[in-house]
Amino acid sequence: MSKKMKLHNFNSGPSILPPSVLEKAAAAILDFEGSGLSILEIGHRTALFQQVMDEAVQSVKSLMQIGDDYEVLFLHGGATTQFMQVPMNLLDTHETAAYCDNGIWGNKAIKEAAHFGNVQVVTDSTGNKHTRIDKDFEVDPAAKYLHFTTNNTVEGTQWHNLPNTSVPLVADMSSDIFYAPRNFNQFSLIYAGAQKNMGAAGVNMVVVKKEILGKISRKIPTIMDYQKHIAAGSLMNTPPVFAIYVSLLTLRWIMEEGGLSEMQLRNTAKSNLLYQTIDSLPVFEARVAKEDRSLMNAVFFLKDQSLEESFLSLCKQEGMIGVKGYRTVGGVRVSMYNAMPLSSVETFCELMKHFASKHG
Amino acid sequence: MSKKMKLHNFNSGPSILPPSVLEKAAAAILDFEGSGLSILEIGHRTALFQQVMDEAVQSVKSLMQIGDDYEVLFLHGGATTQFMQVPMNLLDTHETAAYCDNGIWGNKAIKEAAHFGNVQVVTDSTGNKHTRIDKDFEVDPAAKYLHFTTNNTVEGTQWHNLPNTSVPLVADMSSDIFYAPRNFNQFSLIYAGAQKNMGAAGVNMVVVKKEILGKISRKIPTIMDYQKHIAAGSLMNTPPVFAIYVSLLTLRWIMEEGGLSEMQLRNTAKSNLLYQTIDSLPVFEARVAKEDRSLMNAVFFLKDQSLEESFLSLCKQEGMIGVKGYRTVGGVRVSMYNAMPLSSVETFCELMKHFASKHG
Repeated sequence: MSKKMKLHNFNSGPSILPPSVLEKAAAAILDFEGSGLSILEIGHRTALFQQVMDEAVQSVKSLMQIGDDYEVLFLHGGATTQFMQVPMNLLDTHETAAYCDNGIWGNKAIKEAAHFGNVQVVTDSTGNKHTRIDKDFEVDPAAKYLHFTTNNTVEGTQWHNLPNTSVPLVADMSSDIFYAPRNFNQFSLIYAGAQKNMGAAGVNMVVVKKEILGKISRKIPTIMDYQKHIAAGSLMNTPPVFAIYVSLLTLRWIMEEGGLSEMQLRNTAKSNLLYQTIDSLPVFEARVAKEDRSLMNAVFFLKDQSLEESFLSLCKQEGMIGVKGYRTVGGVRVSMYNAMPLSSVETFCELMKHFASKHG
Repeated sequence: MSKKMKLHNFNSGPSILPPSVLEKAAAAILDFEGSGLSILEIGHRTALFQQVMDEAVQSVKSLMQIGDDYEVLFLHGGATTQFMQVPMNLLDTHETAAYCDNGIWGNKAIKEAAHFGNVQVVTDSTGNKHTRIDKDFEVDPAAKYLHFTTNNTVEGTQWHNLPNTSVPLVADMSSDIFYAPRNFNQFSLIYAGAQKNMGAAGVNMVVVKKEILGKISRKIPTIMDYQKHIAAGSLMNTPPVFAIYVSLLTLRWIMEEGGLSEMQLRNTAKSNLLYQTIDSLPVFEARVAKEDRSLMNAVFFLKDQSLEESFLSLCKQEGMIGVKGYRTVGGVRVSMYNAMPLSSVETFCELMKHFASKHG
């Protein structure tokens, strides 16, 4: 692969970021906003950094259209930390929480919740290899909350409507946060690792409705306690300063480009083009139910599996990065996060057509 | 303060980093080692990142002169996360761990350990406002481990010799990791947030002797389990990729500059100069016992407290960043981590002399 070749970064995460975000992040490492210091060298309790934190919080509130009944936190770790932190804060030992098992990440969340209370798995798509999301299930109204993964990065499914339940909703939005407008007000807790649609690896956003907190008897270690993080304004300890700054740059970029409606338009255009191309070429096969297809991660296969290696080699040769399917699923996975331009998806689709014309 | 003025960054953390580290970090954000991708955009399971992780681990082992009985992990979070993670992994509910209370961070560690087992506070310097470290204490030989903070960033004290005990040693080295050679082989577990002597905020190094693990009955949530992180090579979940890379750049810098002996020479020269200047000027006063003075953070006071504001203003005016004492301690704090050049300490000492000549 020539280093001069134009690369198309379809990585599933950490993943593509807008070029302007990268340029500003690099500049801030040399001199942060004319301060004469690097963003890596400034104290987290300085006015300079407080402005970053304040603007990041306000940007999230503005994009989500949520009010002061919510708090926005930027914490160390990723979604895997939240698999533990959510039940530790919300679920007492003898209480029950409802969980959806629609893929590898939801399943991990279930295993961690079981350390803290009872887990009722209300839907489990293992039987259909997570190729569809069953929306027809009952949740015990006494359940403390219902947890689901809005977008299943590995399997390529996405919830396009909210689950039908009256219990508080808790969602892992790591791989589709800010991909489109959503009724964020319908959620009691949202978390997202930043490294797909809102920045770089190393920070975790948690948006929590305050009324859901403080209702359990467990003593929570300080670093895991949402209420203590809220009281400290995400500055209980040294936060991941640079990762938060990259999130701010990404949030600014989303707003400058036109906000969540514009992201939705772009993501719809990209994913429509890709799925239409898959469906039109008999050499490829998408197994996910059409109504559950993810706008972020398209997972598909070569109908003749013996062609898979040849297709993936061609992708690599043509500068298509990160399109090999997850190890437990196989096939091809094309991630098209907010920062992915339509032109890269177009180029990829041309490559698919070229391949199909030779092997169709 | 003019933006053109030469700044001297005495921040206590996040803090000064070598200029070459900043330049390389900024370059990697635009193009990581000629890959055509940003370090923020590469997958953590790629060969490119695996090389970063492998070299970082090997560099730590080489600097510490430790063998394969130890594992080196790079985890999300900072020392505050370890205050919880250490006892969660090492201390069963009915067991006892010994802790030293020599300042604000050690005290926080004690409070978190109490969530998991019994804590025996073997020494407590609160009575002397943490201005000296009592080394004459008994540790119950049945204690699971002895925890201490090798350098007290806030109070300006440092352990210059190991505690005299036979129980396994666990140390928070966040603020003096790699400041000098140490008998790292004498420790069973070492942890350090990277943002002082080994990189940027957002990653936490844990060095653990394997034999100390797996000896408790508690079920540990996956993301907190050292053994599972070891099995996954610090890649259980998406790691803080960029922060680990900055740690690698800083580790390389330490080795290129001459290793830990050279760091010790430089840190000794800087701190000797500063403490000699404090001691020679009656307007200033260092309250920490001479034998316990920190080479990293010098905490001192204006004998006439009414001069403090005037001195701090002068510092600010002359480009001395981050020299105000911690809010619970007051006075002046000058942090002189590995990357701080002697010339900055010389400039600071000249300023002290100038101030003393006017107010002496």
